[in-house]
Amino acid sequence: MKTYTRKDFLTKGALAAAGTGFLASCVGGESEANASPAIHTGKTYKWKMVTTWPPGFPAVGEGANLLAQWIEEMSGGRLKIKVYGAGELVPAFQVFDAVGSGAADIGSGASYYWAGKIAAAQFFASVPFGMNAQQVNAWIYSGGGQELWEEIYEPFGLIPMLGGNTGVQMGGWFNREINSLDDFKGLKMRIPGLGGKVLEKVGGTTVAIPGGEIYTSLETGVIDATEWIGPYHDFKMGFSDIAKYYYTPGWHEPGTALEVIVSKKKYDELPADLQAIVRTAAFRLNLWTLSEFEAKNASFLQQLLTDDKKFELRHFSPEVLTGLRATTQEVLNELTASDPLSKRVYDAYATFQQSIGGWAKITEKVYYEGIMK
Amino acid sequence: MKTYTRKDFLTKGALAAAGTGFLASCVGGESEANASPAIHTGKTYKWKMVTTWPPGFPAVGEGANLLAQWIEEMSGGRLKIKVYGAGELVPAFQVFDAVGSGAADIGSGASYYWAGKIAAAQFFASVPFGMNAQQVNAWIYSGGGQELWEEIYEPFGLIPMLGGNTGVQMGGWFNREINSLDDFKGLKMRIPGLGGKVLEKVGGTTVAIPGGEIYTSLETGVIDATEWIGPYHDFKMGFSDIAKYYYTPGWHEPGTALEVIVSKKKYDELPADLQAIVRTAAFRLNLWTLSEFEAKNASFLQQLLTDDKKFELRHFSPEVLTGLRATTQEVLNELTASDPLSKRVYDAYATFQQSIGGWAKITEKVYYEGIMK
Repeated sequence: MKTYTRKDFLTKGALAAAGTGFLASCVGGESEANASPAIHTGKTYKWKMVTTWPPGFPAVGEGANLLAQWIEEMSGGRLKIKVYGAGELVPAFQVFDAVGSGAADIGSGASYYWAGKIAAAQFFASVPFGMNAQQVNAWIYSGGGQELWEEIYEPFGLIPMLGGNTGVQMGGWFNREINSLDDFKGLKMRIPGLGGKVLEKVGGTTVAIPGGEIYTSLETGVIDATEWIGPYHDFKMGFSDIAKYYYTPGWHEPGTALEVIVSKKKYDELPADLQAIVRTAAFRLNLWTLSEFEAKNASFLQQLLTDDKKFELRHFSPEVLTGLRATTQEVLNELTASDPLSKRVYDAYATFQQSIGGWAKITEKVYYEGIMK
Repeated sequence: MKTYTRKDFLTKGALAAAGTGFLASCVGGESEANASPAIHTGKTYKWKMVTTWPPGFPAVGEGANLLAQWIEEMSGGRLKIKVYGAGELVPAFQVFDAVGSGAADIGSGASYYWAGKIAAAQFFASVPFGMNAQQVNAWIYSGGGQELWEEIYEPFGLIPMLGGNTGVQMGGWFNREINSLDDFKGLKMRIPGLGGKVLEKVGGTTVAIPGGEIYTSLETGVIDATEWIGPYHDFKMGFSDIAKYYYTPGWHEPGTALEVIVSKKKYDELPADLQAIVRTAAFRLNLWTLSEFEAKNASFLQQLLTDDKKFELRHFSPEVLTGLRATTQEVLNELTASDPLSKRVYDAYATFQQSIGGWAKITEKVYYEGIMK
């Protein structure tokens, strides 16, 4: 597998976009897909897939390539998908619009990237102190989440599907100790999204920095801290050489769901067998991606935790987490008070979260506390 | 959805089989599948799927039906699968042999059902104090598990795939309190597999009872306790009316993987597109099944925990779990000392378990303790 390093972020123009996670930017193009009646004709379809990931980026960019491969294999070559990395056809943050308008046919990203366009979308990616991967999957597939998600994307001409999950992320790399909520005051941190809003409410400052500039910013003190993903991706970024503390857990992203979005118009043109193939391939991608993150994070954590490591692994204290949770609730209350659609989606999310939380408390929680060594 | 009750277990001859879980029995049949070169010819294949589940049984039998449906949809009807419940074509415990011999083409079950034939198989289903669903998936898909599993099933003419997971199960229904390891002494419990071996080592007696006879056996004191699955399935069995205690967690089955087995001969005869369709459908089934268990267990737990409930929800104490873990290790040591293949598979399992456990300790565990409300 091609390995990505911090250098890739520093040298690639495609990675100059600021904002969320490990994202990128560029220019647009046209679709090659053709209309067709929804019957099996043996006709070949050519789709363009635009993604928010650098091409072939570990786990997520690789996953986009695998999705295309699986679909081509299952369709016997009748649905061929060409995958474009962020910026190769459209900039990362234009994936939603590109697929919605039909300029591309299918996309890979995460729904919180479209929060500026449709605030309610972000509940389908990650909510601070929200559900983890297993719970989100249960909500989407067996708890009414899919139907709600499709309903809110329908006006944009898009069909959303789960297309991966990062699992519980790490809290980030810090050059200041966080022993109490007060320690966030004045902290300059690269942390996007709802997590960033929470940080600002507890007195910190969020700084938007492109992936390629984070290392230098952290090294020179432009920022005091940054979140990224987990050991697998963090290792390559080199943060372990320049940060004093690696904090857990990623309270702001406890199980970020990735998404596959499909142009509804293009989907409707497919014969039923290819439609089923696209939907089923997305399930496989979801499960493969989480498994890949889990297995690789586990082995890269061991690589990070060497005897001569320069950083300390730290846990946010229960008090810090309790404070952040209360502040998160304020942020969510403000969001849902100002946007009825966000309120509707969050209410559904929170109802399911409460139900599955009751079950998890007597099973998964007990598993980790009493069964796992 | 058709709901199953205890009555179904009492009245159906198909469910007279003793042994593991919610299993059943019956008679055999012949395959309709035809040989074909591995190129896409438009030819139609008809497969028989034998299962270890009562037909349409919640989550698992339903899942078998969905697998057949998805494969038929994706193949445009070129691969049609007729699903047989346990006993409709072959008895539950003959599924492995039936698919291996080519009498059936594909099967749905769990690998610990074949422990009598190949002891090492059970590590691919559930290990007491072993990995949970998320960890097992990571092992199989991204940690070398799939390759090992295929290798040990190859002599039997079978290709194994993950086809579901129950999630963390409950510890079972008890009419005696378990406050210390000593309380297992003399306990008569229906608990199959490795968990049963552990119970016997701590002084209990395992009793093999068919699904349909458990209720009466527990009510009349023939047994003091029984494990089953979780609230979704347990609710229908009526145990909550006659047992004093509902214990958690299911230390003996912390995340039981279900399997799809395919005849290697029949698989090799398929064109490449249908092979990819079968493999991808199994991923979807795996994820759908776990999501269904999680969502339904959560809502049925609420239905069980009414104000006028007759049982108490109890947690096994840390001391009890520590004792059971040590005894489990003895059972595993004996198994692996006597069977080199079991040793090889368990070594791979345990190595991955240790790696992912280190990661889970600072993420998923912390999620349940500090992030989840």
